[in-house]
Amino acid sequence: MVLPLNPDIRATFLPPVMEARRWLEGVAFPPERPLINVSQAAPMEAPPEGLRQALADAALNQPEAHLYGPVLGLPELRAEVASQWSVAYGGTIAPEEVAITQGCNQAFCTVITTLASAGDEVLLPTPWYFNHKMWLDMQGVGAVPLPTGAGLIPDPDEAAALITPRTRAIVLVTPNNPGGVEYPAETLRAFYDLAKTRGIALILDETYRDFDARTGAPHDLFADPDWRGTLIHLYSFSKAYRLTGHRVGAIVADAARLSEAEKFLDCVAICPSQLGQIGALWGMRNLSQWVAGERDEILARRKAMSEGFAKLPGWKLLGCGAFFAYAEHPHPLPSPELAKRLVREVGILLLPGTMFRPEGDPRGEREVRIAFANIGVGDIARLIARLAAWQS
Amino acid sequence: MVLPLNPDIRATFLPPVMEARRWLEGVAFPPERPLINVSQAAPMEAPPEGLRQALADAALNQPEAHLYGPVLGLPELRAEVASQWSVAYGGTIAPEEVAITQGCNQAFCTVITTLASAGDEVLLPTPWYFNHKMWLDMQGVGAVPLPTGAGLIPDPDEAAALITPRTRAIVLVTPNNPGGVEYPAETLRAFYDLAKTRGIALILDETYRDFDARTGAPHDLFADPDWRGTLIHLYSFSKAYRLTGHRVGAIVADAARLSEAEKFLDCVAICPSQLGQIGALWGMRNLSQWVAGERDEILARRKAMSEGFAKLPGWKLLGCGAFFAYAEHPHPLPSPELAKRLVREVGILLLPGTMFRPEGDPRGEREVRIAFANIGVGDIARLIARLAAWQS
Repeated sequence: MVLPLNPDIRATFLPPVMEARRWLEGVAFPPERPLINVSQAAPMEAPPEGLRQALADAALNQPEAHLYGPVLGLPELRAEVASQWSVAYGGTIAPEEVAITQGCNQAFCTVITTLASAGDEVLLPTPWYFNHKMWLDMQGVGAVPLPTGAGLIPDPDEAAALITPRTRAIVLVTPNNPGGVEYPAETLRAFYDLAKTRGIALILDETYRDFDARTGAPHDLFADPDWRGTLIHLYSFSKAYRLTGHRVGAIVADAARLSEAEKFLDCVAICPSQLGQIGALWGMRNLSQWVAGERDEILARRKAMSEGFAKLPGWKLLGCGAFFAYAEHPHPLPSPELAKRLVREVGILLLPGTMFRPEGDPRGEREVRIAFANIGVGDIARLIARLAAWQS
Repeated sequence: MVLPLNPDIRATFLPPVMEARRWLEGVAFPPERPLINVSQAAPMEAPPEGLRQALADAALNQPEAHLYGPVLGLPELRAEVASQWSVAYGGTIAPEEVAITQGCNQAFCTVITTLASAGDEVLLPTPWYFNHKMWLDMQGVGAVPLPTGAGLIPDPDEAAALITPRTRAIVLVTPNNPGGVEYPAETLRAFYDLAKTRGIALILDETYRDFDARTGAPHDLFADPDWRGTLIHLYSFSKAYRLTGHRVGAIVADAARLSEAEKFLDCVAICPSQLGQIGALWGMRNLSQWVAGERDEILARRKAMSEGFAKLPGWKLLGCGAFFAYAEHPHPLPSPELAKRLVREVGILLLPGTMFRPEGDPRGEREVRIAFANIGVGDIARLIARLAAWQS
């Protein structure tokens, strides 16, 4: 390329999900062995009919569904999140402490930009979610790996040792992507106390919270009247209501920070999709029972994964929950090679662990992520059978 | 705020359109003198029924309308843009040289991030589009003002004198926001040659091109087989098809640059709204005649503005075209005060010129932007009558 290229964007990697899709090119999947795609946490089916009908009605009859809305989102949706979250977490969240974004990835980009500039640092437990690493790279912000051990739960004491004067935030994803583990409430409390003491932000990405196997609130951090000084919470409407293609997410944070976020969102978004927001609001008001059923189904898939992998020679589940299993494989080849061969030889598309680890970390080569929540228990059985039969 | 705040985001200003909306709070607009809102280039009505019906049908019957799509957009829409643009501009544009974004503001943020990092510089003619300035501020990229004189057309020789080793791009918006002027093809060619010679990008934002008063291609830059080495073109589907609330824009650039853009878009977007893209594609395939009618109507409004302002004592139109008029006012008070008083005293919401000028530039205080394309000729007459009658 002749033109200038920002070295920070050149330094980061290509979108892993798009890279993995390219592995499918030119590969034929016979009818008796169709592709099993567990590369992305992406519902494969449309939202329920009521929600689709609500969107169609809005498209036909609500002119404002097609026109600009407020930068920080529809007031009714912000109020609904504030109200439902206040009850769910046993705290007080006001509508002006909620912002709606074009998906939860954008929510993350937004809050990082309010917190950090080039040269600052952010702690990410590893294995990490690749888009978090990519955004930090592109902003010139250092992504400091916080390695996790058995169980994939990060240790607050280890985090404390990594905090420097340039550290601006710790990011936790629970239930975890890619690890699938649900962080204990005590772990979240310990990280919260650490962040509060050190004057940095705790960014808590709860995209997958609707599929947590535990009942009740996953933490009590919003019950602290001072939460605004430390906690930033991220959420996605995509998984609960199958709205991935509409791009609707949320930030809960101090209103003063959202006023800074508004500057960023005015530039990258102007406003979230109005129809997406109408769908999210309709879902929040009408689909709680339906989501509970979806959760039951996903917990059944999780059980099938755990039981199936227990019998799979050499494989070890490091974590399994919500949408993901994160596993060690027994084969004497690096996971990127394994992943490409699994596409061609047994019709499985999963992501290699190298996509979730810092460059050069050898553990990624022995690991894979399986987004099992996308497929039914029948396909989970077929996935496991194909892995069992495959010879490296 | 207790938590860290990125100084680059603190340094920029609040979204002007949202600030202006706050001036409306607590102000009553009597039925005989309703608010005339000319603050934002925002269609006030829904898209035509056929497009609404296409969206409703997709919402009901196309599962993929709700699910993730490719980061760089729907292949059919990319191909349609490539094909129609190739014809319209007399050049060769391939589908892989088109990316779809969540609106044209996001397109701008994306291409800037591929070009520039903190400490770099970008040339913006003044008066400028405030979101361009805001994004550059937030990225730590210097926005170098390129002042325009009478006619609001920037001078390539003056631009040449401002280029430094840190300059990465020149941004031109034509038809201009906020100035309303259509840049002559020779001006665009001269800037293109300058950018090519100096190895920097020419970013050409043609959001309002569907409402250009001239017929035929507004420039011939795509006819240069080397356009990929210099030109980056931005477009919005929002204005032509009244899709502002769906957020759909486009970038045309070298495929290698779009591969870098994909990294940024994977983080801030994952994909553009699928329904928005379906609407844009339907519009491109079915609404060219309807858009021609919209253009006629907007040209009639432009004529009403020009004729009305010619008779308005003391006021001077600096530019008038596409969606905007940019005018000097005759009143002995700064434009932000003027704008707030016009809301309260005569029910007009417009934006002061200070929002489009570097801080401290005194010219902004004598100027206002009027997004006249939103209102009919009747309201334009009322707008002018109210301005004529108002006493400062």
